[in-house]
Amino acid sequence: MLEKLKKDVLNANLMLVKYGLVILTWGNVSGIDRESGLVVIKPSGVDYSELRPEDMVVVDLNGKTVEGTLRPSSDTPTHIELYKAFPDIGGVAHAHSTYATAFSQAMKSIIPLGTTHADCFYGQIPVTRKLTQNEIDTEYEKNTGIAIVDTFEKDHLSYKACPAALVAMHAPFTWGDSPEKAVENAYILEKVAEMNVISFCISEKTRSDPMDKALIDKHYFRKHGKNAYYGQK
Amino acid sequence: MLEKLKKDVLNANLMLVKYGLVILTWGNVSGIDRESGLVVIKPSGVDYSELRPEDMVVVDLNGKTVEGTLRPSSDTPTHIELYKAFPDIGGVAHAHSTYATAFSQAMKSIIPLGTTHADCFYGQIPVTRKLTQNEIDTEYEKNTGIAIVDTFEKDHLSYKACPAALVAMHAPFTWGDSPEKAVENAYILEKVAEMNVISFCISEKTRSDPMDKALIDKHYFRKHGKNAYYGQK
Amino acid sequence: MLEKLKKDVLNANLMLVKYGLVILTWGNVSGIDRESGLVVIKPSGVDYSELRPEDMVVVDLNGKTVEGTLRPSSDTPTHIELYKAFPDIGGVAHAHSTYATAFSQAMKSIIPLGTTHADCFYGQIPVTRKLTQNEIDTEYEKNTGIAIVDTFEKDHLSYKACPAALVAMHAPFTWGDSPEKAVENAYILEKVAEMNVISFCISEKTRSDPMDKALIDKHYFRKHGKNAYYGQK
Amino acid sequence: MLEKLKKDVLNANLMLVKYGLVILTWGNVSGIDRESGLVVIKPSGVDYSELRPEDMVVVDLNGKTVEGTLRPSSDTPTHIELYKAFPDIGGVAHAHSTYATAFSQAMKSIIPLGTTHADCFYGQIPVTRKLTQNEIDTEYEKNTGIAIVDTFEKDHLSYKACPAALVAMHAPFTWGDSPEKAVENAYILEKVAEMNVISFCISEKTRSDPMDKALIDKHYFRKHGKNAYYGQK
Repeated sequence: MLEKLKKDVLNANLMLVKYGLVILTWGNVSGIDRESGLVVIKPSGVDYSELRPEDMVVVDLNGKTVEGTLRPSSDTPTHIELYKAFPDIGGVAHAHSTYATAFSQAMKSIIPLGTTHADCFYGQIPVTRKLTQNEIDTEYEKNTGIAIVDTFEKDHLSYKACPAALVAMHAPFTWGDSPEKAVENAYILEKVAEMNVISFCISEKTRSDPMDKALIDKHYFRKHGKNAYYGQK
Repeated sequence: MLEKLKKDVLNANLMLVKYGLVILTWGNVSGIDRESGLVVIKPSGVDYSELRPEDMVVVDLNGKTVEGTLRPSSDTPTHIELYKAFPDIGGVAHAHSTYATAFSQAMKSIIPLGTTHADCFYGQIPVTRKLTQNEIDTEYEKNTGIAIVDTFEKDHLSYKACPAALVAMHAPFTWGDSPEKAVENAYILEKVAEMNVISFCISEKTRSDPMDKALIDKHYFRKHGKNAYYGQK
Repeated sequence: MLEKLKKDVLNANLMLVKYGLVILTWGNVSGIDRESGLVVIKPSGVDYSELRPEDMVVVDLNGKTVEGTLRPSSDTPTHIELYKAFPDIGGVAHAHSTYATAFSQAMKSIIPLGTTHADCFYGQIPVTRKLTQNEIDTEYEKNTGIAIVDTFEKDHLSYKACPAALVAMHAPFTWGDSPEKAVENAYILEKVAEMNVISFCISEKTRSDPMDKALIDKHYFRKHGKNAYYGQK
Repeated sequence: MLEKLKKDVLNANLMLVKYGLVILTWGNVSGIDRESGLVVIKPSGVDYSELRPEDMVVVDLNGKTVEGTLRPSSDTPTHIELYKAFPDIGGVAHAHSTYATAFSQAMKSIIPLGTTHADCFYGQIPVTRKLTQNEIDTEYEKNTGIAIVDTFEKDHLSYKACPAALVAMHAPFTWGDSPEKAVENAYILEKVAEMNVISFCISEKTRSDPMDKALIDKHYFRKHGKNAYYGQK
């Protein structure tokens, strides 16, 4: 069942490793088959080097395992909340990449400072609010997903234009049209986070002054939407 | 004698290199056979690329060589103190990894700022007190181990919940159920140390404000203890 | 047509990857055949691993594609402005390398602090002025090139002695006698930028105090011009 | 002539690359045959990947080429001054490694903060005075060597106990019993420099407060001198 998606999800998980975004087994990527509403996700705590397509776990949008003998990633309920709230996404990635995680730890959003950011993310990449004691104690992983969705609603952000969120005191989640695209966004996020920290060391102003709005628009819409002209047709 | 443990100890020493945690030959991992009370450890100052299982040195808990023609690591007495004081550990690792060593040099403990920390370490990772002139001049390596043990006693820390210490002006020691697990903890420690330094550059508050206690509990006990649900059964 | 130059341009693009200067497909190198006035450039948004010499696009100095079925890099008009204004250059490179891009984001020029800088760049590496809303909205990439040229004219800089510019809020462009040399300069620029940021962390004075002029002269002219004595004859 | 030394010098130059201490061709290692007083050194500006043992250049202590068709490294006169003033060294290395070069640029010596430093360097690693305009204009490379030697004399430092110097606004020179050992010291210097910069980010105190003298003595003499007990007999 969903053999193609399993291969894509496995491949996207291996991309996390290739891009240097994970520590040990601490990262996970999933993909969704929108027709059946089924999610394919990495099993929990298994070495990347041992993963085979048939190890991927299939769950429904209630988190119930539909196929697979291994436990799905413990972060599965977070992925599910994102699939439910963001109807056009096809993949979700979670990594503990160094610089993006440091922004999560500092509970600071990432403001746009340059075109590397604007090429992929339209506007700032938000950090979620803290979870309450109760939200942590009960259905923690589900509430993590809800906190991400809340952040986008409260700040009137578009999940399509900003395919990433920093979970406070935790680490980033990213998404995209496909599992592979979700990982690509995780990689770009990490590079943008690194460039911004270095920018802070060069000039204090970069901590609070975002780049020009006109340049954000130019670079974002050069690559996205109906007037995009970057890449091949 | 202890052929399996020698292979495990050699393999764990090579993991130190693979994870980028050592400079030249400056690191060492040991393992203990609790039944016989014998410790297997890397020989002193030998290139990692030349190490064979039969080069591992077997010492007793008095530091006397029981088997092996090479000198054991000069840090052997530190390992022995840890094995004597921490009865449930099976392996000890010592590395000069860049970021954790910088915390040792700055004599600052590592406070928990995010779930990457809490997934492995429950609470802050302590730095030891300075050794006295006399402790340095006489049985220095043994006294280094005693200083680590003192730190855990004085601060009422659990060596199981925090399998790492930063030796003041020196470098980290980590431990675990096995030699491999001790190295894995050294690697996680290094990544946590790196993330925290970057967090300091993003927000001054992270220098003194730890993450929420509820989140520490959630992440630590999601992976450890009888209610753990991370990974496979 | 221009088969040799296509191979050189492809090779120089792959050097960008080898030196770790690009994120995903975000970088491009071109070369010019001065006799025919034709520019060979990487196609837009194609994976480096898939590029073949015959994929390189040939454009004239009006930006019109003369040969090739793929779209040229979207930054082609920037390259063309540089070829038109800087008559002795043979190659142009554009990268989003981490440290140089951070200087672009901070809108700070890179002042010479050491001989690593002076061996390649004579004096500071300038950052361009911001583009106006109108310049961004109309012929953005062409205006980016014009802003670079303006910076060199306004500051009386020599494009031969300083083969690099930081585009404000964007990233560096570098150039040289050949496509390969343009990439080599991009690599040196990145290392110099990294060393300078680290110097800022060591001493605040390095933010504003350049190195001695006599030493700049010595190192630059040791490698460039008629009295150069570095390297082989 | 000196075939064994040529191989050692070539190998040591390739170690510079392996340890990540050089940019392009910007580094050089030499070795001396004390009996004949001849120095073997890398040719100037040649790619490391193309170097063969027979490309090494043999010069005497006046800098005159005795054997070899290529020009010797332009830094040869610096090496020669060190061989003349430091009679017990067998090899010299020069690199533009990132962190050590940043200390050179900031004109700050590296104070001992931890045992990683004390294991190899006894006391602080000095930065040289600036050269005068005249010293730069006439016999610059020779005067660079003289400035290093002056620094050791003025500060009553031992070149054996501290096998490294930071040339102001330039980069480090290191030395040792052999070419290989000189490169090993360059590598340790780079790691120590990196750890110290990170320490500065963790605690301001580390900028001026060195580690305890008793610990420096312990670690340095654990590895050096007649009472050393590190490594194998």
